[in-house]
Amino acid sequence: MTTQQKLPYDPAALRKRAESIIANVRELSQLGWTPATSSNFSLRLDDAHAAITVSGRDKGRLVEDDIMVVDLDGRAVGRPLRPSAETLLHTQLYRRFPDIGCVLHTHSRVQTVASRLYAGQGRVRLEGYELLKAFEGNATHETALDVPVLANTQDMNVLAAQVDALLDRQPLWGYLIDGHGLYAWGRSMAEARRHLEAFEFLLGCELDLRRLGTPG
Amino acid sequence: MTTQQKLPYDPAALRKRAESIIANVRELSQLGWTPATSSNFSLRLDDAHAAITVSGRDKGRLVEDDIMVVDLDGRAVGRPLRPSAETLLHTQLYRRFPDIGCVLHTHSRVQTVASRLYAGQGRVRLEGYELLKAFEGNATHETALDVPVLANTQDMNVLAAQVDALLDRQPLWGYLIDGHGLYAWGRSMAEARRHLEAFEFLLGCELDLRRLGTPG
Amino acid sequence: MTTQQKLPYDPAALRKRAESIIANVRELSQLGWTPATSSNFSLRLDDAHAAITVSGRDKGRLVEDDIMVVDLDGRAVGRPLRPSAETLLHTQLYRRFPDIGCVLHTHSRVQTVASRLYAGQGRVRLEGYELLKAFEGNATHETALDVPVLANTQDMNVLAAQVDALLDRQPLWGYLIDGHGLYAWGRSMAEARRHLEAFEFLLGCELDLRRLGTPG
Amino acid sequence: MTTQQKLPYDPAALRKRAESIIANVRELSQLGWTPATSSNFSLRLDDAHAAITVSGRDKGRLVEDDIMVVDLDGRAVGRPLRPSAETLLHTQLYRRFPDIGCVLHTHSRVQTVASRLYAGQGRVRLEGYELLKAFEGNATHETALDVPVLANTQDMNVLAAQVDALLDRQPLWGYLIDGHGLYAWGRSMAEARRHLEAFEFLLGCELDLRRLGTPG
Repeated sequence: MTTQQKLPYDPAALRKRAESIIANVRELSQLGWTPATSSNFSLRLDDAHAAITVSGRDKGRLVEDDIMVVDLDGRAVGRPLRPSAETLLHTQLYRRFPDIGCVLHTHSRVQTVASRLYAGQGRVRLEGYELLKAFEGNATHETALDVPVLANTQDMNVLAAQVDALLDRQPLWGYLIDGHGLYAWGRSMAEARRHLEAFEFLLGCELDLRRLGTPG
Repeated sequence: MTTQQKLPYDPAALRKRAESIIANVRELSQLGWTPATSSNFSLRLDDAHAAITVSGRDKGRLVEDDIMVVDLDGRAVGRPLRPSAETLLHTQLYRRFPDIGCVLHTHSRVQTVASRLYAGQGRVRLEGYELLKAFEGNATHETALDVPVLANTQDMNVLAAQVDALLDRQPLWGYLIDGHGLYAWGRSMAEARRHLEAFEFLLGCELDLRRLGTPG
Repeated sequence: MTTQQKLPYDPAALRKRAESIIANVRELSQLGWTPATSSNFSLRLDDAHAAITVSGRDKGRLVEDDIMVVDLDGRAVGRPLRPSAETLLHTQLYRRFPDIGCVLHTHSRVQTVASRLYAGQGRVRLEGYELLKAFEGNATHETALDVPVLANTQDMNVLAAQVDALLDRQPLWGYLIDGHGLYAWGRSMAEARRHLEAFEFLLGCELDLRRLGTPG
Repeated sequence: MTTQQKLPYDPAALRKRAESIIANVRELSQLGWTPATSSNFSLRLDDAHAAITVSGRDKGRLVEDDIMVVDLDGRAVGRPLRPSAETLLHTQLYRRFPDIGCVLHTHSRVQTVASRLYAGQGRVRLEGYELLKAFEGNATHETALDVPVLANTQDMNVLAAQVDALLDRQPLWGYLIDGHGLYAWGRSMAEARRHLEAFEFLLGCELDLRRLGTPG
């Protein structure tokens, strides 16, 4: 009779999440949104755990071993791996919103440049676009959406506190960090990707309009 | 002897149209022209029906079930699916022009930005390009083509009425909606794609020329 | 004993040229340099014939039947197909230069925009780039290369005469036509593609530098 | 009993390096960073040899024969091939730094345009980006990194002496040559690619910010 340590999460669910992360992140990598091994990605596993990419791996070539399990305080579970410092920015969303299932953090050039240009104002206002309807809860283009831009810091507790303060004030599907990139999330991988693609597209339009002069 | 409800359209024709839509839209999606599950696409089925994409699906991964049948008033036929609100903008073209066989609606960044910049003028004038010959009926570059830009609204009847008024005045292979995207059409999928590609290319050139200063 | 009409060219050589054109043009099409079925491409067959793309086909999906044979006056040989009006711009090069083996004509956005911006000056001067060494005959970056920009016309005889006048004055590996695109050539497909890629790259750099201000 | 000349390097190691170069350079070529057969790439073989691409080949279609061996003075070893003139810029790094294992030299449009714009200042300052952490040895974004821009010359000894002078003064993972492109390196192929991708990304952001005005 063997003694087997019971895992605190379902390994079959982990395998399924890992496959989804690997396939989706490969596509994001091919778009150039994860340069130089940057960016990190997670899916909720259950009400106490999330599956998240190990830090520093080439995001176009992830394998199952590159996906680790963390608890919702961001501590490694099961394998003795050091999770990315930014894990906390994922788990704070899972902890706060029971229906959030996926968090995607990317570093596209559009996101980075927009974050630098609008850091002084603290937000990018998106207005007048049909694609605002891509954000869950929006049924019309006749609305405005502010993407907050947070100052960058290597202290994740400071960032997490700022995000919590934002979430206290408004519903939110994403934010920028100055010189850094975008966090976007959703209830499922599909919804988080839809939000991520919509942010990327609309921030790109804003940069183009800034380049080309005010419409008139 | 079985009683079988006769479909008002040919299911084999539908299957063929669905395959064509799936293959063509996958390519448009890879170009980034259908961000965040936006855009919709149709092919005429017969003189009373069209095959059109179901709303909200990822356009890079369409399957046969994501193509539905509507009558030319835009009502679902055969399956109890809710067609996209914009279906009316497809069917008005099939109703008006018996030889139109395909309508493509995309949301590229070039299309969206151009629509914002030229909404005030109500049109983008394309002039001096060899590629104007890509539009059916044009045999020379020594011509000018105006792409109308309509105000965006969630009321499709308003948009459809504006399109009808435009079509009363001039031949047309496409129009922009402000902050939204492009509608392009043709007698076949190949012709509609040729028109779509020509609009995208020429609008992109116009934005570049605006950025770079007037030629001189 | 059968009587068989002898073809004036080697069908095996044609098949080989067709394969090369199909494979190379598919790659150029994927770069977006052949929008809306535009552009045409040829390879020399022998001292009296060339293989050239039939007009109006989707350049990303060419098949062997889309490659026809013309004599060096641009008349169809073997099959009763109407060659593209621009065939003359290919054959004049084969007629004039016995060692030229390949002519590539593309319509990229960079080429079209550069042709519009520099039409007034009649040329784009390329200077100070290491990649100038990509043009056969150049061994250093310390040189300047002028890309002529011709006025567009639907009369190919006028264009051909202007090209001949240019070739009387200077060695040349390519030219632009205003609002239209680029012609580039070489002794082989590989050399013509190297020249084409170098023109595209350097014209793109020139547009960027114009956008960004003079270096200093 | 056969007499066999012993190679001064391990052929199995060469084969492995060649495979790595071929696979990685194909990806860089698909990004458009090696236009018109430009660019060259190497991996250290041992403490006296490196494997490097033969000059003038299409970087998207390299085969094993396109990778040659040079000693650390840049002389061909084993096969009578003429190494690229720029080989010296690779071997000087292997000679100087025993732990450097890979040197990548590319010609992207961003790199070329940045080199032209910043040649007068002699450097591009990169500051305020999270991605600065991609460079080995950087643990924070709160740092600045200067990318030197050297004047272009066809005399590699002059360039090599300038690079040596730079390396005497500071740690460095890459430099630009005016009108030419970027050299980037690392201890392994993976690290060199991470540095190359980070340079490309950050130079691209700098060009965008220059285009769009100072953040504020």
